[in-house]
Amino acid sequence: SVPPGVPPLCHQPLAWGRAARQPPGLLLAPRRPFSNNKILVELDESLGVATMKFKSPPVNSLSLDFLTEFCISLEKLENNRACRGVIFTSAVPRIFSSGLDITEMCGKSTEHYAEFWKAVQEMWLRLYGSNMVTVAAVNGSSPAGGCLMALSCDYRIMVENPKFSIGLNEAQLGIVAPFWFKDTFVNVVGHRVAERSLQLGSLHPAPEAHKFGLVDELVPEEELREKAAAVMAQWLALPDHARQLTKNMMRKKVLDRLVAHREEDIQNFVTFISKESIQKSLRIYMEMLKKKKS
Amino acid sequence: SVPPGVPPLCHQPLAWGRAARQPPGLLLAPRRPFSNNKILVELDESLGVATMKFKSPPVNSLSLDFLTEFCISLEKLENNRACRGVIFTSAVPRIFSSGLDITEMCGKSTEHYAEFWKAVQEMWLRLYGSNMVTVAAVNGSSPAGGCLMALSCDYRIMVENPKFSIGLNEAQLGIVAPFWFKDTFVNVVGHRVAERSLQLGSLHPAPEAHKFGLVDELVPEEELREKAAAVMAQWLALPDHARQLTKNMMRKKVLDRLVAHREEDIQNFVTFISKESIQKSLRIYMEMLKKKKS
Amino acid sequence: SVPPGVPPLCHQPLAWGRAARQPPGLLLAPRRPFSNNKILVELDESLGVATMKFKSPPVNSLSLDFLTEFCISLEKLENNRACRGVIFTSAVPRIFSSGLDITEMCGKSTEHYAEFWKAVQEMWLRLYGSNMVTVAAVNGSSPAGGCLMALSCDYRIMVENPKFSIGLNEAQLGIVAPFWFKDTFVNVVGHRVAERSLQLGSLHPAPEAHKFGLVDELVPEEELREKAAAVMAQWLALPDHARQLTKNMMRKKVLDRLVAHREEDIQNFVTFISKESIQKSLRIYMEMLKKKKS
Repeated sequence: SVPPGVPPLCHQPLAWGRAARQPPGLLLAPRRPFSNNKILVELDESLGVATMKFKSPPVNSLSLDFLTEFCISLEKLENNRACRGVIFTSAVPRIFSSGLDITEMCGKSTEHYAEFWKAVQEMWLRLYGSNMVTVAAVNGSSPAGGCLMALSCDYRIMVENPKFSIGLNEAQLGIVAPFWFKDTFVNVVGHRVAERSLQLGSLHPAPEAHKFGLVDELVPEEELREKAAAVMAQWLALPDHARQLTKNMMRKKVLDRLVAHREEDIQNFVTFISKESIQKSLRIYMEMLKKKKS
Repeated sequence: SVPPGVPPLCHQPLAWGRAARQPPGLLLAPRRPFSNNKILVELDESLGVATMKFKSPPVNSLSLDFLTEFCISLEKLENNRACRGVIFTSAVPRIFSSGLDITEMCGKSTEHYAEFWKAVQEMWLRLYGSNMVTVAAVNGSSPAGGCLMALSCDYRIMVENPKFSIGLNEAQLGIVAPFWFKDTFVNVVGHRVAERSLQLGSLHPAPEAHKFGLVDELVPEEELREKAAAVMAQWLALPDHARQLTKNMMRKKVLDRLVAHREEDIQNFVTFISKESIQKSLRIYMEMLKKKKS
Repeated sequence: SVPPGVPPLCHQPLAWGRAARQPPGLLLAPRRPFSNNKILVELDESLGVATMKFKSPPVNSLSLDFLTEFCISLEKLENNRACRGVIFTSAVPRIFSSGLDITEMCGKSTEHYAEFWKAVQEMWLRLYGSNMVTVAAVNGSSPAGGCLMALSCDYRIMVENPKFSIGLNEAQLGIVAPFWFKDTFVNVVGHRVAERSLQLGSLHPAPEAHKFGLVDELVPEEELREKAAAVMAQWLALPDHARQLTKNMMRKKVLDRLVAHREEDIQNFVTFISKESIQKSLRIYMEMLKKKKS
């Protein structure tokens, strides 16, 4: 059950716009027990800055448990007046997050698929719409859903290692990035880069990702923490209220689009992922991953 | 009459979205005889790649005949399961395509103008909405409608010769690029570059066009064919279904806008082009071209 | 009262689109006396080019008087067939314009705030929607509303002095740039640059502003006038009608958005600016400016 002290997820952050009028049934309800141990949260109250470290080995995949913990942790910080900004980084070497957990999308019930997808939506709505300053300190590869998390922050710093890559590579797996992944991507890199990168399912090595603006800055790994803190300080120097209203003005249109089509988007996902051809693709992909490991 | 084996143009490619619900009267009907000799189509069934070579000297202008042949050829490939991608290039030296044929817009009946414009729309709807991978191998200058064809492909490779130029130069002729030319342009180069380039009616030398993304890559002329084949192979490595759905997601909004305003757009064109002032501009322009030649 | 010869502001330029159907009460009426001495207008009838020089020391702030004079001057040129283009520059050293006059937003009546905001809207609607070629010759710093004026022109040339900066820095003052400032900014620099710059309230030194396209060109101060004239000549080489229709096609959507929400936007501004917390921020800011001076 929910750990004591975790507020119910019924308070909508201001930046969500119309989300506040959504029936509560659409919100992520922590219906299932989960272990509160996939994300380390540290809050420096003197600075007003929290760090969320993903520590779900081997690859920080976005399972239902991970997403639920992520949303609850973010919500707690959002409601904590002592916290004005969050830095997201990984405690697992060489990987930021591998994206959506394929085992949640393979061989499960349609109810499970729907619950999982609602959690993915919830993660994005909360992160892209957060009133806090959000900085991604990308210290490893970040494909698909991992890339979406980075794209949803206010600023992206990546370790300059060309072995680390980032991108929305869904097409490589035979699946399609949802429209709100696409909207978030277009808002960062523009229509043309997004069109090409999404169709090719490209994973861009850090230097290439920096070149066309997918990440804002590259640093040596040993300077990542310090750089993230410096960027956060720069953003926190602005008055919160003006910064939040400005952020909301920039992101509201894209957030509203998902809020308006949320149930439809869940149905689309469930129908698509339940197809035998897609299930087969995913099984083949998982086999490939297993062989790679052994 | 229509050559045997050419299917009627009633099958809408998936990517058109709402086009499928359009009354058939809006589609290009091959009402008139045409000679099937302005475009060379070669299909390599082992690769699944066709090449369409424009050979309508002197400048591959987009006449009604050319456009009709283009649409029928593309439709045949679209319906041919052995074909997954098309490379567009020119068999005429130094010119890719000079754009819309001005003789079709000058001194003709309003019925003719309407039929011509419908064919221009049809070309764009089929090309921009194609489910196949489309690569423009731009081996010469490509103004106006020629530029639109290149912009409508998935990828543009241009010969690096600075004497070859590309752009939507309609304003130079005293006419205005239609909104869907503009939408296609904005999707490639962004709002600001499009705003400036369209107002100035700029023709950009290949190196400049490459600099701001109007073309994706420059190559020496002797490497064009090989590079186009390599790019095509890269795009065909992706699963068709995922790539097609992704392409449709990126282009649907702009395709739907023309489909929703198609008749209105024809009427606008006919009214505009029938104006005596515009007819006069075009006559002066044609005189200039004739003098240049002699 | 209005100087003789100034036409009433009831004629809407073509590029406004739906503005023409607005009730006349929404238009800026020159209800109050103003001195016609904040802007020097020189028209070279042989070239068809006017220069508007801002000379309202110390910092060319956009007071109600300044804005009223600006709109009337621009309207006169718009209706003068001998004028096809306008160059905007400053007669005050080191500053193009400091933006909205804070004294108009502090300690005044709600009626005054509404009148002032209507004048700001009017300035932008007329400038962004102008049928003339508009070139900003930015010979000094240009924050906030000053930046908006530059962004609303067709082309921006800035003196290459890195001490001169430009940007929409509203967030620094604890206020939020209105949606149409944002729309204009996004149309020039794209969504990502705008999102970051607006949230940080960044003032970009000229070289940085040039790097990401906020200004089109940098020149040494002594070449500014000549360069502006050359750019103007390039744009005037195009047929007016085609250029105007193209400009309108690019800007109509964003202009229409304000026209459709004009009264609402005024109410939002009045409510926001009347808040005690905002008034306090502005008073502190003004105190700071006064101390800086002495």
